[in-house]
Amino acid sequence: MDLTPYRAEKIKESDYGILAKKFGLSLLNPEILEKIKKHTKELHFMLRRKIFFAHRDLEWLLDEYEKGNKFFLYTGRAPSGKIHIGHLVPWIFCKWLQEKFDAELWFQFPDEEKFLFRKELSLNETEKWTYENMLDVVALGFNPKKTHFLINTKHASLLYKHACMVAKHVTFSTVRATFGFTNDSNIGSIFYTAMQAVPCFLPSILQKKNIPCFVPLGIDQDPHFRIARDVLPKIGFYKPALIHCKLVPGLKGVGTKMSASDPTSAIYTTDTPEEVREKIMKHAFSGGKETIEKHRKLGGNPEIDVSYQWLYYFFETDDRKLEEIYFSYKKGTMLTKELKEYLIEKINSFLKKHQRAREKAKKILDKFIFKE
Amino acid sequence: MDLTPYRAEKIKESDYGILAKKFGLSLLNPEILEKIKKHTKELHFMLRRKIFFAHRDLEWLLDEYEKGNKFFLYTGRAPSGKIHIGHLVPWIFCKWLQEKFDAELWFQFPDEEKFLFRKELSLNETEKWTYENMLDVVALGFNPKKTHFLINTKHASLLYKHACMVAKHVTFSTVRATFGFTNDSNIGSIFYTAMQAVPCFLPSILQKKNIPCFVPLGIDQDPHFRIARDVLPKIGFYKPALIHCKLVPGLKGVGTKMSASDPTSAIYTTDTPEEVREKIMKHAFSGGKETIEKHRKLGGNPEIDVSYQWLYYFFETDDRKLEEIYFSYKKGTMLTKELKEYLIEKINSFLKKHQRAREKAKKILDKFIFKE
Repeated sequence: MDLTPYRAEKIKESDYGILAKKFGLSLLNPEILEKIKKHTKELHFMLRRKIFFAHRDLEWLLDEYEKGNKFFLYTGRAPSGKIHIGHLVPWIFCKWLQEKFDAELWFQFPDEEKFLFRKELSLNETEKWTYENMLDVVALGFNPKKTHFLINTKHASLLYKHACMVAKHVTFSTVRATFGFTNDSNIGSIFYTAMQAVPCFLPSILQKKNIPCFVPLGIDQDPHFRIARDVLPKIGFYKPALIHCKLVPGLKGVGTKMSASDPTSAIYTTDTPEEVREKIMKHAFSGGKETIEKHRKLGGNPEIDVSYQWLYYFFETDDRKLEEIYFSYKKGTMLTKELKEYLIEKINSFLKKHQRAREKAKKILDKFIFKE
Repeated sequence: MDLTPYRAEKIKESDYGILAKKFGLSLLNPEILEKIKKHTKELHFMLRRKIFFAHRDLEWLLDEYEKGNKFFLYTGRAPSGKIHIGHLVPWIFCKWLQEKFDAELWFQFPDEEKFLFRKELSLNETEKWTYENMLDVVALGFNPKKTHFLINTKHASLLYKHACMVAKHVTFSTVRATFGFTNDSNIGSIFYTAMQAVPCFLPSILQKKNIPCFVPLGIDQDPHFRIARDVLPKIGFYKPALIHCKLVPGLKGVGTKMSASDPTSAIYTTDTPEEVREKIMKHAFSGGKETIEKHRKLGGNPEIDVSYQWLYYFFETDDRKLEEIYFSYKKGTMLTKELKEYLIEKINSFLKKHQRAREKAKKILDKFIFKE
């Protein structure tokens, strides 16, 4: 298994431990969760459920925090299509961290990345998606006073120079080994990781002091930060601390991905209630039995049931309620149709609120875009 | 022989024809010189003397000009040290072209380039040199209304996005073959050529129409423009036309280079009259004989005499006067000391005027820096 941001791999639940070991990540153990809880009072369900499951240097980050050396948050989105439920996981966690630790958040929109990696994508398209995707981020309710959007092409005067500082310490051999590039890779894609590294130390540059950086991210993004962590101490900055989340399974089953190009694989933030109903009813892979009779008798399998998994990853934040569903479904007292109805109700209620906030975001978006 | 911007080679006069053939350049023949003269009335001495000696697509450029499709000029300087006499050759020619063709000039200062290619150079240093080098360009007397400085890190919001458009069409294989990169080359140096390509089409983007681009350049810069010429038609722009000059020999002899790091190899624009005298007297390689008696009898060799070559390349624009010196020196009636005195007088008179203009440049520099 070889997971990079640019090579899609099917990931099963059991793969995460293997990946963590292979990447050299630390797992989130009870001690470190306790250490987080000391400051946050409660643990976010994504921590309780080990959706965020691994980290790099989180202990160091919390030690620094306890010494009064506050961190800032950094995450991002490469605009290339609609936002789906899976994209929201690290962002919602980011928002919780922002609130609990009163942290500044730097949010990068590398609008050149997917243009460089996808032959058919134009800069006009990524520009359109940058706007659309920013609305989704704003809609989640981040604090506009503490949230700073960086759009790579627009903020290049701020980013490119510092990307060169990183790039000077990264060889072609390194990016080839890290991302699987070949001699036919284009020179923009080869350079790109340097642009992604910049927000790890840009706030330190702007404030003229070394500030710890904390990055919540999907585990597929870890390779970029392996490079950033290697280079940053060489140019005088802390290594960014990372916390890694699992990837929400696509509708077609655990181990599949949600994709912007396949509407039957994902729920997008702009889907209508009818689209949601149809997608869940028709395409959400079910762990139930073929007939109601058999299901009542033998029960379903929540581990492979995408509707259950989505409640677990995102839509049912109440652990007791989730447990109840788990056992009812497993025993067969809850039917697939009932489970799906429950999920549809949850999704549509979330999207109704989100879409309203997304409309309002158009008016306040400008407050989020970083002004030099 | 393998000349790139990043591998210094000793170049003899006889090598230029070989290089032109190897690179696939056209030589400036009498027909094309005539075609230039039709518009300029006279030929610059750098054209008469074949200091500018080769080109790509210059006929096409002039045809377009005759059809009313005016070109803009593009040249540049990677700041990394003092400006020496050799640097001024293409710029002085550029100024003449600007005047004769009433052309806009885009002047790029890629302040990241040498930082990326030289281990010991910092961005603070390149920033300092950017300012110093800009003063030298302004001092040459370009028209501030028609001359636009682009500083790569400062204008990155304008440049990086368009560099990505180029980069998408350039593979690692291509830059490896063109510049001699290896797997150990850093990813900033690999990407850099895309930034150098941008001014070839930036004016077309800003004015929303395809405008021919004309680049006077030292022949060592040709590799960058081979890539630009390959890519530009793929993204909807004309190939830039080029005109190539030979490299002024260093003080230590024909075939050596002037260097910013070896003060005995070059005259810098900031040298004092005493420094000029000492450098020329002590270090300018002489084609004269060991004794005055022998020189009077056998004569000197202007072909290998750096003082004569500098008059040829730069300081004696009067062809008849130059010819007189050539034959007096060759016959032995002119002594090395006399030739050197003549050159010193020429250099110091040029530098006196240049240094005065360079001081004044501090006040008007801002007019030259492109405002978006």
